[in-house]
Amino acid sequence: MEKWDGNEGTSAFHMPEWMIQFADQKQEFNKRPTKIGRRSLSRSISQSSTDSYSSAASYTDSSDDETSPRDKQQKNSKGSSDFCVKNIKQAEFGRREIEIAEQEMPALMALRKRAQGEKPLAGAKIVGCTHITAQTAILDDGGDLTHWIYKKYPNMFKKIKGIVEESVTGVHRLYQLSKAGKLCVPAMNVNDSVTKQKFDNLYCCRESILDGLKRTTDMMFGGKQVVVCGYGEVGKGCCAALKAMGSIVYVTEIDPICALQACMDGFRLVKLNEVIRQVDIVITCTGNKNVVTREHLDRMKNSCIVCNMGHSNTEIDVASLRTPELTWERVRSQVDHVIWPDGKRIILLAEGRLLNLSCSTVPTFVLSITATTQALALIELYNAPEGRYKQDVYLLPKKMDEYVASLHLPTFDAHLTELTDEQAKYLGLNKNGPFKPNYYRY
Amino acid sequence: MEKWDGNEGTSAFHMPEWMIQFADQKQEFNKRPTKIGRRSLSRSISQSSTDSYSSAASYTDSSDDETSPRDKQQKNSKGSSDFCVKNIKQAEFGRREIEIAEQEMPALMALRKRAQGEKPLAGAKIVGCTHITAQTAILDDGGDLTHWIYKKYPNMFKKIKGIVEESVTGVHRLYQLSKAGKLCVPAMNVNDSVTKQKFDNLYCCRESILDGLKRTTDMMFGGKQVVVCGYGEVGKGCCAALKAMGSIVYVTEIDPICALQACMDGFRLVKLNEVIRQVDIVITCTGNKNVVTREHLDRMKNSCIVCNMGHSNTEIDVASLRTPELTWERVRSQVDHVIWPDGKRIILLAEGRLLNLSCSTVPTFVLSITATTQALALIELYNAPEGRYKQDVYLLPKKMDEYVASLHLPTFDAHLTELTDEQAKYLGLNKNGPFKPNYYRY
Amino acid sequence: MEKWDGNEGTSAFHMPEWMIQFADQKQEFNKRPTKIGRRSLSRSISQSSTDSYSSAASYTDSSDDETSPRDKQQKNSKGSSDFCVKNIKQAEFGRREIEIAEQEMPALMALRKRAQGEKPLAGAKIVGCTHITAQTAILDDGGDLTHWIYKKYPNMFKKIKGIVEESVTGVHRLYQLSKAGKLCVPAMNVNDSVTKQKFDNLYCCRESILDGLKRTTDMMFGGKQVVVCGYGEVGKGCCAALKAMGSIVYVTEIDPICALQACMDGFRLVKLNEVIRQVDIVITCTGNKNVVTREHLDRMKNSCIVCNMGHSNTEIDVASLRTPELTWERVRSQVDHVIWPDGKRIILLAEGRLLNLSCSTVPTFVLSITATTQALALIELYNAPEGRYKQDVYLLPKKMDEYVASLHLPTFDAHLTELTDEQAKYLGLNKNGPFKPNYYRY
Amino acid sequence: MEKWDGNEGTSAFHMPEWMIQFADQKQEFNKRPTKIGRRSLSRSISQSSTDSYSSAASYTDSSDDETSPRDKQQKNSKGSSDFCVKNIKQAEFGRREIEIAEQEMPALMALRKRAQGEKPLAGAKIVGCTHITAQTAILDDGGDLTHWIYKKYPNMFKKIKGIVEESVTGVHRLYQLSKAGKLCVPAMNVNDSVTKQKFDNLYCCRESILDGLKRTTDMMFGGKQVVVCGYGEVGKGCCAALKAMGSIVYVTEIDPICALQACMDGFRLVKLNEVIRQVDIVITCTGNKNVVTREHLDRMKNSCIVCNMGHSNTEIDVASLRTPELTWERVRSQVDHVIWPDGKRIILLAEGRLLNLSCSTVPTFVLSITATTQALALIELYNAPEGRYKQDVYLLPKKMDEYVASLHLPTFDAHLTELTDEQAKYLGLNKNGPFKPNYYRY
Repeated sequence: MEKWDGNEGTSAFHMPEWMIQFADQKQEFNKRPTKIGRRSLSRSISQSSTDSYSSAASYTDSSDDETSPRDKQQKNSKGSSDFCVKNIKQAEFGRREIEIAEQEMPALMALRKRAQGEKPLAGAKIVGCTHITAQTAILDDGGDLTHWIYKKYPNMFKKIKGIVEESVTGVHRLYQLSKAGKLCVPAMNVNDSVTKQKFDNLYCCRESILDGLKRTTDMMFGGKQVVVCGYGEVGKGCCAALKAMGSIVYVTEIDPICALQACMDGFRLVKLNEVIRQVDIVITCTGNKNVVTREHLDRMKNSCIVCNMGHSNTEIDVASLRTPELTWERVRSQVDHVIWPDGKRIILLAEGRLLNLSCSTVPTFVLSITATTQALALIELYNAPEGRYKQDVYLLPKKMDEYVASLHLPTFDAHLTELTDEQAKYLGLNKNGPFKPNYYRY
Repeated sequence: MEKWDGNEGTSAFHMPEWMIQFADQKQEFNKRPTKIGRRSLSRSISQSSTDSYSSAASYTDSSDDETSPRDKQQKNSKGSSDFCVKNIKQAEFGRREIEIAEQEMPALMALRKRAQGEKPLAGAKIVGCTHITAQTAILDDGGDLTHWIYKKYPNMFKKIKGIVEESVTGVHRLYQLSKAGKLCVPAMNVNDSVTKQKFDNLYCCRESILDGLKRTTDMMFGGKQVVVCGYGEVGKGCCAALKAMGSIVYVTEIDPICALQACMDGFRLVKLNEVIRQVDIVITCTGNKNVVTREHLDRMKNSCIVCNMGHSNTEIDVASLRTPELTWERVRSQVDHVIWPDGKRIILLAEGRLLNLSCSTVPTFVLSITATTQALALIELYNAPEGRYKQDVYLLPKKMDEYVASLHLPTFDAHLTELTDEQAKYLGLNKNGPFKPNYYRY
Repeated sequence: MEKWDGNEGTSAFHMPEWMIQFADQKQEFNKRPTKIGRRSLSRSISQSSTDSYSSAASYTDSSDDETSPRDKQQKNSKGSSDFCVKNIKQAEFGRREIEIAEQEMPALMALRKRAQGEKPLAGAKIVGCTHITAQTAILDDGGDLTHWIYKKYPNMFKKIKGIVEESVTGVHRLYQLSKAGKLCVPAMNVNDSVTKQKFDNLYCCRESILDGLKRTTDMMFGGKQVVVCGYGEVGKGCCAALKAMGSIVYVTEIDPICALQACMDGFRLVKLNEVIRQVDIVITCTGNKNVVTREHLDRMKNSCIVCNMGHSNTEIDVASLRTPELTWERVRSQVDHVIWPDGKRIILLAEGRLLNLSCSTVPTFVLSITATTQALALIELYNAPEGRYKQDVYLLPKKMDEYVASLHLPTFDAHLTELTDEQAKYLGLNKNGPFKPNYYRY
Repeated sequence: MEKWDGNEGTSAFHMPEWMIQFADQKQEFNKRPTKIGRRSLSRSISQSSTDSYSSAASYTDSSDDETSPRDKQQKNSKGSSDFCVKNIKQAEFGRREIEIAEQEMPALMALRKRAQGEKPLAGAKIVGCTHITAQTAILDDGGDLTHWIYKKYPNMFKKIKGIVEESVTGVHRLYQLSKAGKLCVPAMNVNDSVTKQKFDNLYCCRESILDGLKRTTDMMFGGKQVVVCGYGEVGKGCCAALKAMGSIVYVTEIDPICALQACMDGFRLVKLNEVIRQVDIVITCTGNKNVVTREHLDRMKNSCIVCNMGHSNTEIDVASLRTPELTWERVRSQVDHVIWPDGKRIILLAEGRLLNLSCSTVPTFVLSITATTQALALIELYNAPEGRYKQDVYLLPKKMDEYVASLHLPTFDAHLTELTDEQAKYLGLNKNGPFKPNYYRY
């Protein structure tokens, strides 16, 4: 059987065997528009880690219609009114944006094309949940939907085959449920897949840190002194980009292994208070809280820029700046000057929320990777034979990770090498992968 | 005499002697707001090389008041009406923007502070000319003011002490006038000063190429194949930035020395038609014309992005795309899709005009360098003893170049080393510079 | 209890609790000279991955005394003859080299100093096995000692508390024994610890590829076209170094995830035969066999350099070059010209054995990391409470990995940040680590 | 006339017109073996800037025959004894090394091939002077030959058509002679040609700093703190290389323009005494004297490495270390430990002489560039029409510089673009160059 063999990706990489069973299912796989829709919408798919950015979008939304979409009566061009969106008249514009985006997501398109014949999700009912705009708190994406069903409609779990979760918080909640013995269905943690981690964090942030800083401040990077708090994937991306642009970068870390990596990559490892007086920019990428405190903010020099690339708005203690002696001045969308009594100004971006979500965009390419991963996880959960997945949280199988990667190689005109039979035998590998042990670090 | 010794810049670097004579003059040096004003204005100071971008600003100007400023009767807050601006009500906003910008231009501020006491331009009448908005063709900055005086009011040259010219085209015209024996006053070519060239071109473009591409297309740089036409300062900046972001960069060149530099810097040197079918992005930085022809455009792959970082809108033969079989679709401000009959789309940015002018911003730091250079050139021309400058075009003296640089070092908390007497003697140098022969290449 | 708290490394990082129990043991920890000895010896500790390099050292060993050390009667300065070395007269020189090396291994020295008081290996008998010189095939380090005991003296296993294995081959053999149920003692796989992998492979090879090529060929890297086969840690290091030196680098891969990383890092992903005619250098880093075949060698251009940075001498099919029509010319130590009938020469380095072992050196810093890791693994195995380790192969606990890293931070004057109680609670972490889940990729 | 049109270099670049006249001359251009000979010899051609390194070669010369070559009677294989070399028996080995080198110098070979037909130096007598070994002070290369003729045989100048000088010191002396009106023949300063400067300094040092440090110390670059004194071409090369290898690099400068470049390239600009206590490596690249003083040396930390990449052995005040309280220990060839009374050791390389000359090699590619340049300068001087060159010092014409570069492009399979007639007219350029004004900085 030749179908689903991943040949779009490369002649050398074949579709994992577990996928071959999907072939005669019937469904309309391409009817998942909400997941791959408008650019602004898409951010929330990819930047799943933001737990709170309630006011983020208010600056970019110029509409003055404050009626809730729930209270509106709208019809689409076919006369249907079974939907709830802010303004159905923008559907055509949205469709156009989707078409443009599709051109940059060949992997997802390849998957859709394949699925159109094989319909691996035929008959499935899929509920999705993601940010649309921040004001409309229908639900955020930190696993809220799961939480809400669990609290309000626990019986519904009997009808659910599985959960695919991509947000940091959502995954964290799932592991807690599992630990407490309360997880009633299998769940797939796609947040920790290799491609998701490396592309959504390292490679994406390498570009969005520059973009976010430039759009908000028009600053020049060359010669600037920067401290990056945290040298995980996000921190590594930020540091690499700023070093390449001629900034002098310092790093803070709590983990000695990451700290040693920072050293070997050419960054001075310091404690924040050692450099706080001299730096021009402070960037947090820790996932921790109160990394930048009021005390640090008090000691920064005039015009220091402070922003957050980590996973929530807790990293900078913004609340500590809401005191009477400090004046806030909104100088531009997403840019506040916080002014000390002596005239010193700190330039705070996005009020300490995620810079890359608030002030930059997520490349379509990254969306393609995360959306493809989610789609494959759905297919796997829906088609897995009885008993393969129990009431637990699972990592994406490595072969699926490799398959997602292989689907994206043609974008780069990249040609994979295929093992010869002799080589596969020598290495003790299946020619179609997986190619690495589970603990491999890439 | 200790004044004007450049101590703001560094303890090691003293003010050039030619400047010491300015001390007892009386003038109000800080009344040159037009040169260092609003961000949008400032671009035209720095990005002097754009010869034509007539429609560039139309997308960002949302005003629907199409009355010419000349036909308006406006008064400022002090009751004066002796000005011609589009909307005087925005003066306060502009003043605020200037104040913000001043914080990022410490060198210019240091120069202003010094001049406030010494008034080296006291009594001088200075006429400036620069882009305000593109629609209002008062004059562009390619030396048009000089040209216009020369054509219409030649007698005025008798009252003019000198000209400071920063644009490529303006400088070119001045050399032509000089060659023809028609230049009636001394002129200072500040376009070819070291700091201007390196900062306005190499270092500024290293950042603005990324910014310009990101703001218009949200593309991801990693893994993209890019061809950069021209490996001068601008090309070097673009190539370095894109290489650092993980793009694969090819270079075209006509000059074998620059070509060999490209090789040593790790770029494949090709002819454009060798790679035109495979690249994702085409960037021109040549100063030449018709570098990208219709034939090249016909052969590009779908979704290829085409843009210009060079000195005018002639590098890409955009006119050749205005044919009936091609459809133009404006998808966003500054972004056109040009669609071939077979559905192929080329993404053309800023209609082939300068990307860094149209779709990016010029960092305040670069403006500070160019504005400081211009101010010093004005001071020099105005105060030079009779006979120092004849009716010719002069390069900025190296000591002034070094002085401009020294004024900007404190921004980076950079500490210059001072030669000992013994070392200065050994090297045969004055301790205060200039430090290099004129042919030094930096 | 304050001892073993890792304070040498950083104030923020405390010694893992499992180590605290060692305090009152008596032993002479510093009597393990063979493991941290001479530079040339040390290579074999670190470069554990070489399975065969039998003739590697013959070029550098100028001695003409071919008597086996086993047949010699020698006495050291104290009159003892219970040793077997090539030439005891060089002991003083060796001691001097050790002393120099110690200065560059502060972490190991810190560990020794601590152990001198606490003697965590008191009473232990430790047998070590490593390369001394290649000619004297006592045993190589691919787990041969284990294998030899298993074959010849199986009863000895009853007296053995555990095995620490660092070589790729040795670890492989241990897993096979374990799988077959024949492993009679616990074994510690220290080859796959984070610090070992990243430092011995990525960071070390980033430097040794340049060193190895330069020492053998004096070639210039700028502008050269290079193909690197394999984009694992070694390949990543080689590619990063050569890109930084201005080479144009192509990558081949079989794993789509590593392939996509290569793309995002700015390398063209190709099949070897696509670029084999044009490249100046071919480097193998795959761990695979026959990656470079005779067919490839036949198609290379004149003066192409071929070398291996992978784990054994199988990657290049050197045997295929031993045919009558080809002439071998040894032009320098480790450098052979293989000459085709038409005059074409291929420059083969180290006869296809490991370049970094044969033609470069391993920095003392890397030796310090691997030696520290081995010492800690010995301590852990020897002191672990009954039952902690069964007859299986274990990865180094993450806390030990972190501890090794923390001991090396002072070398770089690196200052680790300590979590506050509040932060540790927020993150759900112990303030002393481990800081990451086991699947974290660094 | 098609000859000498530089087509080897590229189809787009044609031979400068001034060269076309050479075609019917008769000479044996390939009889200049001393200039392109053995590797060790060749260094002295390229590394012309070393004025004194009298003991440099003694460590590498293992011969114990101390008889001066002048006192020997030797015959070559053809029976001739009209030569003076150390050991004629090594001629065959030298010839072999030349043949190997020739393979890596295609540009020089292309020039030789062309000249074999046209013989542009037919009839010329050429005297060369360069380092052979340091002990045999026949003459160094700082223009000593010129100086010696001037002092001892001034009448010989009547027979001399011109001088080609490549060393810094030699050029300096020529300018002094010219200033004093004592230069009797035209001289060509080839030291300041673009290709010589960029390749011999920037690109060559980018590689040789790593090579020199590695061969002498086996140190790891990652994480090391380094201070580079001087940010000219050599300093730029050293800094770029070390930054790429993960070192943290500080820069000292006296020139504010170079200082600002260092800032924009991402290096902290400091005074030496600000960082002297913390750095692991000190590198001088200034051309100045006493940049590193005894006071600095006293304050360095234990194991600090000190070396010189500048133009002479004056940059580090080595003499100040020859005091009784300090112990010198030669630990390896070119490596001295200087030991303070408290046990602190400074690792001094090459006794402060040029590291890249003493402890590294010069790539054949760089030799090819300098040798080609010299050959062309000879041809130009010999064939220039009467009156083109007067008794003065001339820079190499830009077209020759461009021609040298074009000859080296095929090495990189680099394809130059040719201007169309329309483009050449638009730019006001000759299609064959020169392409840039004389002040262009590259």
